[in-house]
Amino acid sequence: MKYISLFILLTALVTAQAQNADSVFIKSLYNKALTEGKAYEDLRSLCKDVGARLSGSAEADMAIKWGMNKLMSYNFDTVYLQEIEIPHWERGSKEAAWIETSKGEIIKLDILALGGSVPTEGLITKDLVYFKDLNALKAAKKKDIEGKVVFINQAMDATQITTFKAYGMCWPMRGLGAVEASKKGATAVVIRSLGLPQDDHPHTGSMVYKDDVEKIPAAALSTNSANLLAERLQEETLQISLQLNCRTLPNRKSFNVIAEMWGNENKDEIITFGGHLDSWDVGEGAHDDGAGIVHAMEALRLLKEANYQPKHTLRCVFFMNEENGNMGGKTYANWTFERGEKQIAAIESDRGGFAPRGFSCDGSADHISWLKSLAPVLKPYELHKFEKGYGGVDINPLKENYPDIALFGFVPDSQRYFDFHHTADDVFENVHKRELELGCASMAAFLFLIDQGF
Amino acid sequence: MKYISLFILLTALVTAQAQNADSVFIKSLYNKALTEGKAYEDLRSLCKDVGARLSGSAEADMAIKWGMNKLMSYNFDTVYLQEIEIPHWERGSKEAAWIETSKGEIIKLDILALGGSVPTEGLITKDLVYFKDLNALKAAKKKDIEGKVVFINQAMDATQITTFKAYGMCWPMRGLGAVEASKKGATAVVIRSLGLPQDDHPHTGSMVYKDDVEKIPAAALSTNSANLLAERLQEETLQISLQLNCRTLPNRKSFNVIAEMWGNENKDEIITFGGHLDSWDVGEGAHDDGAGIVHAMEALRLLKEANYQPKHTLRCVFFMNEENGNMGGKTYANWTFERGEKQIAAIESDRGGFAPRGFSCDGSADHISWLKSLAPVLKPYELHKFEKGYGGVDINPLKENYPDIALFGFVPDSQRYFDFHHTADDVFENVHKRELELGCASMAAFLFLIDQGF
Repeated sequence: MKYISLFILLTALVTAQAQNADSVFIKSLYNKALTEGKAYEDLRSLCKDVGARLSGSAEADMAIKWGMNKLMSYNFDTVYLQEIEIPHWERGSKEAAWIETSKGEIIKLDILALGGSVPTEGLITKDLVYFKDLNALKAAKKKDIEGKVVFINQAMDATQITTFKAYGMCWPMRGLGAVEASKKGATAVVIRSLGLPQDDHPHTGSMVYKDDVEKIPAAALSTNSANLLAERLQEETLQISLQLNCRTLPNRKSFNVIAEMWGNENKDEIITFGGHLDSWDVGEGAHDDGAGIVHAMEALRLLKEANYQPKHTLRCVFFMNEENGNMGGKTYANWTFERGEKQIAAIESDRGGFAPRGFSCDGSADHISWLKSLAPVLKPYELHKFEKGYGGVDINPLKENYPDIALFGFVPDSQRYFDFHHTADDVFENVHKRELELGCASMAAFLFLIDQGF
Repeated sequence: MKYISLFILLTALVTAQAQNADSVFIKSLYNKALTEGKAYEDLRSLCKDVGARLSGSAEADMAIKWGMNKLMSYNFDTVYLQEIEIPHWERGSKEAAWIETSKGEIIKLDILALGGSVPTEGLITKDLVYFKDLNALKAAKKKDIEGKVVFINQAMDATQITTFKAYGMCWPMRGLGAVEASKKGATAVVIRSLGLPQDDHPHTGSMVYKDDVEKIPAAALSTNSANLLAERLQEETLQISLQLNCRTLPNRKSFNVIAEMWGNENKDEIITFGGHLDSWDVGEGAHDDGAGIVHAMEALRLLKEANYQPKHTLRCVFFMNEENGNMGGKTYANWTFERGEKQIAAIESDRGGFAPRGFSCDGSADHISWLKSLAPVLKPYELHKFEKGYGGVDINPLKENYPDIALFGFVPDSQRYFDFHHTADDVFENVHKRELELGCASMAAFLFLIDQGF
């Protein structure tokens, strides 16, 4: 008994010491990020020296070169490009929309074509027909819609504490609105933006067409324009004048950008982490997803600067084409599988550069238990969300080839995200230096804990 | 045994039902705050219709009338003023400072007199002497300081995750810098602002003099000006030209503004909660502490709108003079004690209008245990900090008269607070609508839980 007690005591001591060593190392990562970090300047450079970088655009090609150069400057074990094929859509010259009231008043609307939309073929002027949400549109009669422009006005639910939930509830309006409106003979569809504030910024974003349903133009109105339209439509019938100048070009060649620190125990076991390098074509893709790119790159830099020797290979991926096709994520998942690589975990940051709250896990019960076990060591950094949840769009395709993989999503505070998401206001100035740095340190700490714990 | 088991089961069921009812009620408070809240408009009005409101100023008198009118408009059981005597300091015309380099270059410095400072009596031009922190000044020789302007350049420690800790570490430089410099014969003192970002905003704030130490002028430099000065002083000796035009006037009469919802079980048992109505004289006192005023008022309004019947009396206090004297808090603590009132708990919001994180408790071990027991019911609102900690400056004097009282502080995210604190940049536009509303709902939920639990 005496020896067993002594053994237990020694084990507890060794465990406590190891935990303490982990805590000291994690604290050093945070200290570096907050005092000698490169994240804020790197994000400024991506936002200002490159800017918006929609897949297929010249700026996206610039961003790939920017990513290569930046990663090479940090002297990781290897930096390389992975070829992918991507769709190529462009907005063309700025879209326009207005209404003319019965008194002859002309009111301009703030509008952005949705990504992938077909154009209007010049200026169209049509009757507007109002629906409070997608279900109301589905329930409507074809004769009330034919030849008209459908307006769907579902507002994000402000009572959802996590704003991503409210976003998810509205996604079908944006993603499927054109298909449902077209089935009933509509000429075009305009939706209320998926954004929480009342303001003048339309939010673009992806949408889908179906092969057997005629493609009609689709665009998003700012919440202020949507409110105005809804109010006016209660008073009188209205026509909308609308012109979208977008077009889809042939697919193009593009690249994911990849950097690695090689594992010294299990080099062939990969921990993938990253964000997406592409953005929409308005704003600067600062929160979406410049922050995620910088979180990942700075995390790897912090580990390297700390002379950390990873057990597994840490692979940082700047995914291309998350916004409108996810060809970066899909191609990566197949590429790594075809090479026979072992993927043990993946982490994505694609929810903005705000103050960290925690991590979500799309994995087994054991993975979720492991995640929850991190709470004590990460509590000093105000991380508290360790829950089952989504990983990320880019890493999600890995699940198909690696059913046992653990996918993790970095979870920052969500309150401000849908102020900026997919708008002209998603610019560097709206990212907070310390909050970005705390995100980088949290990502570095998490990579370290996965590398040690898996 | 069987009956005992049944009793336990029934108790558990009743408890679970009560918890569920609590959860439903708390959710309804959040829903109202986020969809039909008055908080954002009330804060806009306080910031724009009144503005900065330093104790003793005409605007502080306006703010008292604003508070009375606003509270009366919400039809609480009673609204009244409580007379207090306050110090009266004013900045006078804008202060100025610059250096002249050996090459004859004139460089203007961003500067604000500290609150309570004596003036310079016109423009003074003196040699500058540098200290990295207050301890370095204390250790210095009198002969190196006499007749000079002392510059103390302690930066807030960016590695402190909670920014209030870094602020606390720097407070002695601001509060005691003038006394320590004067003891060594300095003519004036300028300090690095207590702010985290590198920018051009000087942060003012309170300081103290001692009766037996000569009062010398004291001012804060923006972090950019402090950095510039520190760099230049490594290259050459410098003189600073400085003019502060502030003055202290005779004490004035002022008021705390108070509203109550009366308890229907224990009307004589008071739960005090609030923020401070005064602010510094620059900016609009939006985060400090317009947010706290609105948190408290909106919390009471939400409870009233929900037809909640409190057990104890809920007393909302807009304290005056927190920034430079705390006469509101001190007078209130004595007034309530002298009236023989029973104070069972107090809650203060004075850490800005940011996304809620939780509550701190300055109380007994039982109080802290009770606070921690709230974690499950408040987790859906992303509240996770339930810890021993400070209550607030205004409510702190209650402890002396009520040693058994529980003091609580509302804890929002701290990362952005010291971007704005005591600067011209603490304006309405820097408060986020949803984050403010979430704070109001958290305060309402907490008041409800205290009223039920105490």
